[in-house]
Amino acid sequence: MGVFIGINKEVRRAYGFDEIALSPSDFTVNPDEVDTSWQFEGFNIKYPIMAAAMDGVVDVKFAIEMSRLGGLAVLNLDGVQTRYDKPDQILGKLISASQEKSTELIQNLYKEPVKLELIVKRIKEIKKNNLLTVVSVVPRKALEYGKVAKKAGADILVIQSTVTAVKHYSTQYKPVNFKEIIDTLKMPIIIGNCINYQAALDLMEVGASGILVGVGPGAACTSRGVLGIGVPQVTATIDCAAARDYFLKKTGKYVSIITDGGMDSGGDICKAFASGADAVMVGSLFARAKEAPGKGYHWGMATVDKNLPRGTRVKVGVNATLKQILLGPSNMDDGSQNLIGALKTSMGSLGAKNIKEMQMVEMVIAPSIKSEGKLLQKSQKIGMGKK
Amino acid sequence: MGVFIGINKEVRRAYGFDEIALSPSDFTVNPDEVDTSWQFEGFNIKYPIMAAAMDGVVDVKFAIEMSRLGGLAVLNLDGVQTRYDKPDQILGKLISASQEKSTELIQNLYKEPVKLELIVKRIKEIKKNNLLTVVSVVPRKALEYGKVAKKAGADILVIQSTVTAVKHYSTQYKPVNFKEIIDTLKMPIIIGNCINYQAALDLMEVGASGILVGVGPGAACTSRGVLGIGVPQVTATIDCAAARDYFLKKTGKYVSIITDGGMDSGGDICKAFASGADAVMVGSLFARAKEAPGKGYHWGMATVDKNLPRGTRVKVGVNATLKQILLGPSNMDDGSQNLIGALKTSMGSLGAKNIKEMQMVEMVIAPSIKSEGKLLQKSQKIGMGKK
Amino acid sequence: MGVFIGINKEVRRAYGFDEIALSPSDFTVNPDEVDTSWQFEGFNIKYPIMAAAMDGVVDVKFAIEMSRLGGLAVLNLDGVQTRYDKPDQILGKLISASQEKSTELIQNLYKEPVKLELIVKRIKEIKKNNLLTVVSVVPRKALEYGKVAKKAGADILVIQSTVTAVKHYSTQYKPVNFKEIIDTLKMPIIIGNCINYQAALDLMEVGASGILVGVGPGAACTSRGVLGIGVPQVTATIDCAAARDYFLKKTGKYVSIITDGGMDSGGDICKAFASGADAVMVGSLFARAKEAPGKGYHWGMATVDKNLPRGTRVKVGVNATLKQILLGPSNMDDGSQNLIGALKTSMGSLGAKNIKEMQMVEMVIAPSIKSEGKLLQKSQKIGMGKK
Amino acid sequence: MGVFIGINKEVRRAYGFDEIALSPSDFTVNPDEVDTSWQFEGFNIKYPIMAAAMDGVVDVKFAIEMSRLGGLAVLNLDGVQTRYDKPDQILGKLISASQEKSTELIQNLYKEPVKLELIVKRIKEIKKNNLLTVVSVVPRKALEYGKVAKKAGADILVIQSTVTAVKHYSTQYKPVNFKEIIDTLKMPIIIGNCINYQAALDLMEVGASGILVGVGPGAACTSRGVLGIGVPQVTATIDCAAARDYFLKKTGKYVSIITDGGMDSGGDICKAFASGADAVMVGSLFARAKEAPGKGYHWGMATVDKNLPRGTRVKVGVNATLKQILLGPSNMDDGSQNLIGALKTSMGSLGAKNIKEMQMVEMVIAPSIKSEGKLLQKSQKIGMGKK
Repeated sequence: MGVFIGINKEVRRAYGFDEIALSPSDFTVNPDEVDTSWQFEGFNIKYPIMAAAMDGVVDVKFAIEMSRLGGLAVLNLDGVQTRYDKPDQILGKLISASQEKSTELIQNLYKEPVKLELIVKRIKEIKKNNLLTVVSVVPRKALEYGKVAKKAGADILVIQSTVTAVKHYSTQYKPVNFKEIIDTLKMPIIIGNCINYQAALDLMEVGASGILVGVGPGAACTSRGVLGIGVPQVTATIDCAAARDYFLKKTGKYVSIITDGGMDSGGDICKAFASGADAVMVGSLFARAKEAPGKGYHWGMATVDKNLPRGTRVKVGVNATLKQILLGPSNMDDGSQNLIGALKTSMGSLGAKNIKEMQMVEMVIAPSIKSEGKLLQKSQKIGMGKK
Repeated sequence: MGVFIGINKEVRRAYGFDEIALSPSDFTVNPDEVDTSWQFEGFNIKYPIMAAAMDGVVDVKFAIEMSRLGGLAVLNLDGVQTRYDKPDQILGKLISASQEKSTELIQNLYKEPVKLELIVKRIKEIKKNNLLTVVSVVPRKALEYGKVAKKAGADILVIQSTVTAVKHYSTQYKPVNFKEIIDTLKMPIIIGNCINYQAALDLMEVGASGILVGVGPGAACTSRGVLGIGVPQVTATIDCAAARDYFLKKTGKYVSIITDGGMDSGGDICKAFASGADAVMVGSLFARAKEAPGKGYHWGMATVDKNLPRGTRVKVGVNATLKQILLGPSNMDDGSQNLIGALKTSMGSLGAKNIKEMQMVEMVIAPSIKSEGKLLQKSQKIGMGKK
Repeated sequence: MGVFIGINKEVRRAYGFDEIALSPSDFTVNPDEVDTSWQFEGFNIKYPIMAAAMDGVVDVKFAIEMSRLGGLAVLNLDGVQTRYDKPDQILGKLISASQEKSTELIQNLYKEPVKLELIVKRIKEIKKNNLLTVVSVVPRKALEYGKVAKKAGADILVIQSTVTAVKHYSTQYKPVNFKEIIDTLKMPIIIGNCINYQAALDLMEVGASGILVGVGPGAACTSRGVLGIGVPQVTATIDCAAARDYFLKKTGKYVSIITDGGMDSGGDICKAFASGADAVMVGSLFARAKEAPGKGYHWGMATVDKNLPRGTRVKVGVNATLKQILLGPSNMDDGSQNLIGALKTSMGSLGAKNIKEMQMVEMVIAPSIKSEGKLLQKSQKIGMGKK
Repeated sequence: MGVFIGINKEVRRAYGFDEIALSPSDFTVNPDEVDTSWQFEGFNIKYPIMAAAMDGVVDVKFAIEMSRLGGLAVLNLDGVQTRYDKPDQILGKLISASQEKSTELIQNLYKEPVKLELIVKRIKEIKKNNLLTVVSVVPRKALEYGKVAKKAGADILVIQSTVTAVKHYSTQYKPVNFKEIIDTLKMPIIIGNCINYQAALDLMEVGASGILVGVGPGAACTSRGVLGIGVPQVTATIDCAAARDYFLKKTGKYVSIITDGGMDSGGDICKAFASGADAVMVGSLFARAKEAPGKGYHWGMATVDKNLPRGTRVKVGVNATLKQILLGPSNMDDGSQNLIGALKTSMGSLGAKNIKEMQMVEMVIAPSIKSEGKLLQKSQKIGMGKK
């Protein structure tokens, strides 16, 4: 399984979406009859796609529309929505700033503290529509914000940082105790990100209901350039899915694997499921929706870091409604719209009746040669990391 | 044979034309004496090249000229030729539309229903020249149109959809019964597309005379971007040719393997034969012919899909006669013309006296670095999928 | 050693110059003391570099200068020098033509027949300077022109076509009998091109003194695009060098392996020797010499082919004297000048005292990422094939 | 471990920074508590980063600032600082020259001989600040300049040439005797460059305190283009680190491995440590510092070579203070600033408490696709070789 890269040093080859393709078998299925639903902690979610907790992508309105359509959107409890009473004004400033000044402006605007009453307010705004409400927090705020969020009616809590592990070393502070958080909050909790079999297993052992998979997935990703860290998503998803399968065998509990990041098209999403994902989390594809609060711009929480900023404000433009992006019809042929239509067609062509069968379809290694234009697009998307 | 791409996950590496090269041996043959003929169901076809059933490539005139020259052209029974009495008017509209409006226009023009009398008319127009007549249909129309086509004099029927398998699951309709179609029509039938050994074998078992090989072959192909599906053509052809060889050993019947798609040059065509093809089906190379009805434009049936369009109208320009493209002389040095001349020269240099010997020449893996210009061309050709 | 590229199909991976690098050991040598000489059939040739028999590169003056400097240049007996009494006039026309008209003009100018008296004249012009005289012919003219050339004083005969093998099949003509040619002419004969172990061994068995190695070596090469044929030079050279070593063991005779084509820099030349070459044949690098008759343009005999032209007239520009290109000083840092200086420095750094030790230095596979500019240059050089 | 690249020829695959990525495990560490210190011959160096001995990067002022910040800078004793009493004037000329004339000007300016009194003067200027003083010399001047440098107060001597080995062959001069130099000077000596296990071991055996690793590391490097020589840095570092580990086991002495060259970002530096480096030597990243004497330009000693120049003056521009580049805050998100911040964050995310643990973190092979822009930058950086 290993490859020698020097004397006494054997490592693994890891694979990304661009390097694999899905391979049809001797069986096909009517695409209209495939079941794309995601069973998660008793919730029957129609479409296994989550919009990422980015301030340019998800606000209350977006979350409502996404839930209504059958997917999920995660509201960032550490962003502008909970720092400002009127976030649209702040977003307006942020969007209209020149590119040169945008990073500094972002850093300044995020100095405003989060208000607990705004956490409550935002959650209730979604919840009153009787829709599944998902919110995200950073680990060190998980217990505090989580209690408030649960009380306000949030259904699912996402605890997210760049690299998350149960085991953490520090003499300066008490490490975050995920077990305590989960035992205290008693609600479905998704934790990430991780890419390592043992790290995923550790998170399952302390009670996580779902694992976010993905650390610096893109080859052109900022984490990879700045920190040297990054594991392509196909291998990362396969490894964490292997942990899920082992944990199921050992405990009978099925924990969801959610591939997060690095998916640029419906094709990439299909490959994530084929790699073993139960659901996917997508950011930039939704940033183009008319409903996205960033009006065609997005940025990550890593931009906020004053010492080691990774990523800037990125312009992607607006080219469709959220409904078109999720369910079509598509006015583009690049795989950026009608993600569920693409998933169904792919599943049909591959003979997969549901997501669990999709996790078993044949993959081949088949490197793609991207055109200049695509490469350029990719490089422009550098630095959309989440914190 | 497998490569581990994650814990417990072993997959195959698949190869495309750009990744391999043909390697001369210790023997050469006079190129003027190589035999390129294709023996298919009693027909002795001089050149083993079929023009693909695309509306911008093949009309009646084109089919006649191609047959006269010694090759074959497939007339699409599901396209403008059988929807409109005067297809040239429709093609004129389609070609003169602006690029922005072309997709919508195509979608509208293909709403006109197919007329059975036009199927009869078109076939008779070709057949009256006493030439081999080949027509194509989609699976769900195969029996209906096939009966009409056979009665009108068609010699060979091509049944084609993106991914075709004998086994299909649906509760909403009765799956297409290929065995019934073949037993009923009692004519040589080519079915596709498939890329899988067992899928090809299943199609042979139900009586197919030929198998079209190719699903999303190009790395920049729309099927690959939108659906994640695609298998490079060298591996796909080798696999299906292995099914052919096994089927021959088992039953004594030799079914033709026809590599379809992904060939950009005479070199790629030579590699298809070296991979085991008995014939090739080529679209875009012929779209540049003066005789092509698209006048330098082409598009695929996937463009017609309103929900999930894959591909748009593509301009390739007109730069030679069909005769030049097939038989030379070439006025280009990029391998796009004199395809048979190239095949003969290649066979001579490789010491292959006929196509069956060409299927056995040595290949090496030798990745090519394509120039910027070539990559750009490639990306512009995105989305020529057939339905 | 093999790689499976499909069911039951195992092939080799072949490597080119861009994919390998030379690796220093624990020993270095004073570069001023390395011995670069090539011992060939009793001739002690100072520098193991031959200028290729291209009409834009070698004429009588160039051959004289190259021999004086210590290398060799091959005069094409099938080109303008032996078709025209005053070739400089013809070359002038060819160079001043517009790019669009150049291919047609080349094809017309090469219709003029070769004159035996001009073969004699050109050889005597070189020979009267008491310099080693090397000339090239195509196989079917080898005996006729070879006799004339030998009588006129030529020292070494090169018999060259794209793919050459002792075994050839034709019912229309009597295949070229290399054994007869060699036995009749009784002079040192270099034959090529080949890339195959057995083909090289066959040529050695019939008495070749040297083997030209290289068929469509470049990934962007015309032979590869048009015919699908091509083997990267590192593997081709290693294979033919293995045949040489076996032939030496079996017969005691040492036949020279001459890598021909695909070398863009001093670095590539160093890699050819490390792959097992005894000498190299270089075309385009010398086309930039002030002494080259093409005045910065070059073209191959394949351009002359009316039916299947491969390659056009290529402009490379003039940027140095032949002496600078061969021996420095270099005014460029891209490896295109001071080829012998680069070879000596490389040999010193790698601890190789002579070419035979250079054939044994360590290589590693280490793919290079070429810049856009380089790729573009490469694509412009497409089509310099020799016939 | 080997790969066959031709008959009877097995070689190793070598890997560079762009081809690998670091992979988090199940353990993380507070980045503020990681220990980045480098223990070298009794010196406790806070940050394991050395600025390379390039005249456009390090002068006395730069060396003082770098040492004050906690890193090290190497002053070139063979450059303008020791050839000219007022080097800033010379540097001013060199910087203001046109690009076309710069190579010739550099070659002329470096004809001025080195003065021993200037060696003394420069060293005392640094040393009087009570800071660690590191200077570099070429092998043939090591004993002469080394004695002067030691007497003047230099703490560490770097002896550097492109490829350095203890064993050298020459009949024209007496090879450099590294053992004699080390035994005579009795000071910590770092020698390089090498990439070979045995060569590194030989240098350790004669008493080197540190080994500089890196020969033509970049794929686009001039040494690779001109000489064909180059080994990617990940494999080179792993191999030399294996020699260090063996030498430690055998003798109990820990020799430092210093990866030199090919690092374009904080990510690459992190990968060097993960490959086994104890410290890194970086040139071009520091050339952008406001304190660098080259004012945004840099060049290598190989540019000085009249016969075989490799590299020219390269403009990188000035975009931050040295402090920002080393310790942040960063105003760029490309990994070119806050190198120590990136190292600490990476170590924390990977669960490495110190450099020795960082040498053990998991790596994966995960090729990166660099954007056009990056490739262009890379090609512009060609030719920064040191002599």
